[in-house]
Amino acid sequence: MPSDGARGRRVPSRATLLLAGLIALFSGQPSQAQNHSESHWLEPYREPAARLIGAALADRFAWRRLAELTDSIGHRLSGSPQLERAIAWAVAEMTRDGLENVHTEKVMVPKWVRGRERASMIEPGPHAIAMLGLGDSVGTPPGGIRAEALVVRSFGELADKAPLAKGRIVVLNIPFSTYEDSIGIRLHAASRAARHGALATLVRSIGPPGQRLPHTGMLQYSADAPKIPAAAIASEDADRFQRMADRGTRVVVHLEMEARLEGEVESANVVGEIRGSERPEEVVVVGGHLDSWDVGSGASDNGGGCVVTWEALRLMKKLGLRPRRTVRVVLWTNEENGGRGAIAYRDTHRTELAKHVAMLESDVGVFTPTGFGFSGNDRARRQVRAIVSLLTGIGADRVGSVGGGADIAPSVEAARIPALSLEVNGPYFEIHHTEADTVDKIDPNEMAKCAAAVAVLTYVLADMPHRLGE
Amino acid sequence: MPSDGARGRRVPSRATLLLAGLIALFSGQPSQAQNHSESHWLEPYREPAARLIGAALADRFAWRRLAELTDSIGHRLSGSPQLERAIAWAVAEMTRDGLENVHTEKVMVPKWVRGRERASMIEPGPHAIAMLGLGDSVGTPPGGIRAEALVVRSFGELADKAPLAKGRIVVLNIPFSTYEDSIGIRLHAASRAARHGALATLVRSIGPPGQRLPHTGMLQYSADAPKIPAAAIASEDADRFQRMADRGTRVVVHLEMEARLEGEVESANVVGEIRGSERPEEVVVVGGHLDSWDVGSGASDNGGGCVVTWEALRLMKKLGLRPRRTVRVVLWTNEENGGRGAIAYRDTHRTELAKHVAMLESDVGVFTPTGFGFSGNDRARRQVRAIVSLLTGIGADRVGSVGGGADIAPSVEAARIPALSLEVNGPYFEIHHTEADTVDKIDPNEMAKCAAAVAVLTYVLADMPHRLGE
Repeated sequence: MPSDGARGRRVPSRATLLLAGLIALFSGQPSQAQNHSESHWLEPYREPAARLIGAALADRFAWRRLAELTDSIGHRLSGSPQLERAIAWAVAEMTRDGLENVHTEKVMVPKWVRGRERASMIEPGPHAIAMLGLGDSVGTPPGGIRAEALVVRSFGELADKAPLAKGRIVVLNIPFSTYEDSIGIRLHAASRAARHGALATLVRSIGPPGQRLPHTGMLQYSADAPKIPAAAIASEDADRFQRMADRGTRVVVHLEMEARLEGEVESANVVGEIRGSERPEEVVVVGGHLDSWDVGSGASDNGGGCVVTWEALRLMKKLGLRPRRTVRVVLWTNEENGGRGAIAYRDTHRTELAKHVAMLESDVGVFTPTGFGFSGNDRARRQVRAIVSLLTGIGADRVGSVGGGADIAPSVEAARIPALSLEVNGPYFEIHHTEADTVDKIDPNEMAKCAAAVAVLTYVLADMPHRLGE
Repeated sequence: MPSDGARGRRVPSRATLLLAGLIALFSGQPSQAQNHSESHWLEPYREPAARLIGAALADRFAWRRLAELTDSIGHRLSGSPQLERAIAWAVAEMTRDGLENVHTEKVMVPKWVRGRERASMIEPGPHAIAMLGLGDSVGTPPGGIRAEALVVRSFGELADKAPLAKGRIVVLNIPFSTYEDSIGIRLHAASRAARHGALATLVRSIGPPGQRLPHTGMLQYSADAPKIPAAAIASEDADRFQRMADRGTRVVVHLEMEARLEGEVESANVVGEIRGSERPEEVVVVGGHLDSWDVGSGASDNGGGCVVTWEALRLMKKLGLRPRRTVRVVLWTNEENGGRGAIAYRDTHRTELAKHVAMLESDVGVFTPTGFGFSGNDRARRQVRAIVSLLTGIGADRVGSVGGGADIAPSVEAARIPALSLEVNGPYFEIHHTEADTVDKIDPNEMAKCAAAVAVLTYVLADMPHRLGE
């Protein structure tokens, strides 16, 4: 039952706010007065916040939408027909939700194709290796590469054993710690091994030990090294290589990968809006990336992030909440292997970035929400803290020290836009970039809380009397 | 530093035991007296038990042996060259341990070959399905089977929808409860679907939800139904089928399997002994099956069970403990897909089964030991309870209500032999019959405790003055 008319009752007039400020100013207790002043503008949002939370938690709409996307379309690598189907689906669904100005914005993206791939120990063996080629990797020659393994536990050990690397397949068995600390291993392994003459590299997956589950992801070739094929292997296989190396066993590996880049193809960011009632030129952007790796079904990375941010607009529309400012959901393309969607958004919207009040990204899963990471000025941080106090009832009231995300980063950096990111507790990195990234890992109720948290924060950011940080 | 001569100091003479019995008899407290009497014979075993536990826990020998087997040889399906290599390896290693009468006993086993296999949803799709053909399954025709899926949650629903099954691929999505309760699903799915004209069946894996991890295992074709191909699918894929069916989505599946039986080939049980010093004709048998499925490396199922039971003999030999009766370790062949090793043992040893004091199998993993399942008479149960009281220090002192195992069952049933099974707490069914059954899942210290528990129980059973149960 949407009803825009109901909105007026819940938003304070400027006179009310001015009065509240004056009362606070003369109350004789400056610090409490400031808190009072800062929180007073928030009071009228308690009721719409409660409605948004209630509407989000009343059913499993968000989870069902994600299940539909991931079941019927599945994973969505840049350049794949699945991604283009997902883009068309999102446009149709946003339109059905009643969002405004629904459209796509063209983005050229690289088309990397995995092709067939396999690896095995052939001496001693044969023993199949659980592997996934890394994004952007080149393939092997037809028939594959057959070479002795050189197993190292660190880049330091690789440097120490550099003379042994020539003509070998380097196995980098560096234990996973955190994603931030470990991602460099995957990015740089190939070129660091190639500089010493290695023919290929197998990298222990960037994720905790699992159930024979390799994790793919991008690599970065350096200009000063030959491009050699690179694949992630499951923790179990990395451990096995290590034990065999420690025993002094000579291990010969066969690696065959058809991986290749097939130029660039057209893709798109998907955009939908609720236009602001008073200051439509000021924009709060929320969103996630719609593309995924070509394994699993891209549920946690990042169909879920798309859906819960999009839910902010759907829920406002459903409840007849039209904020003063425009709320825009963006489903970026090509986050995983290029970041072209993020750059295209910045470039397409460059002239209006100064009017971007805030940008919010969800890209670490839609498990139990704990709050939001935030990057911005102190005044804005206090305001965000005040807003998320509305989320105490669903446990999502923490404000972390850093907000952001790969898709909003180019815009945020270009125009110093306050940046937010949904933070959650859940097994994101256990299944990230794997065949196990499927919707069953996500609890519908926790996902609904994520949607509620994003909706409340987004609505208040878009409607608050003063612009965030001012 | 083995020393058989040291043994005499730790074993009570018959006179001592008689005296203890008389003291107990005249103590005036019959029930305590009985306890006292029953436990008195145990006292001399505290010291060798402590030595066995200490020797087992002093290093990671058992885990290293298992790692060597599973790393270098890997999985060991009946009829595979790997199993025959493992048999030769075990004979060589037992000989190196100084075991006696080390030999193999010929067993003819079926040779089932998985071949290449794959399944995918092709409408809507394509979406790859994580699958593993079931043991004994027939293959599909070349090029595979392409048919609409019929998804059911129970055998009852299959019966209700029987008219819809003809020409379909039946997806049996029955949730896993316990292995005992769920195994019938895997065994009977193919024939129950085939009776209604199904072309093939995909069965939700018999195991808890995991990380896109299908669990293989045997099926049993009924004589009254056509043999149709059958495969296990990961829980995620079963859930996806169910959601799509619940939405009314028509799903078409392509299934291609090269699975086939290639007749029978020669294999063997491996046997090693420590001959008894006083009653060598009386035998305590311990062991596990050396064969495995053709996925993972057969570490928990059941390389670990082989090694920890074999450890009982190695540790006795190392410590110079030669019990009165013979201790025999048997590594059975073909438990997974035929049970031929178990039957061959019974038949080969039929004339001496009456002299089998007890048989102990380890086949549920070598995680944290909790004690032993036991099947036998009440007096024997009390004696086993007394013996495992020596294992309180390692937490393995529980006696479960039922003991046994597939490899000892034919012999146990033929001659009413007391049956024991090592019981543990650990993630056995999470990785059972999967690619994730690898040695890294096993904690070396917990495995050492398993070896210690088996060693102490076995030694006392083989050395106790009275035969178990008498």
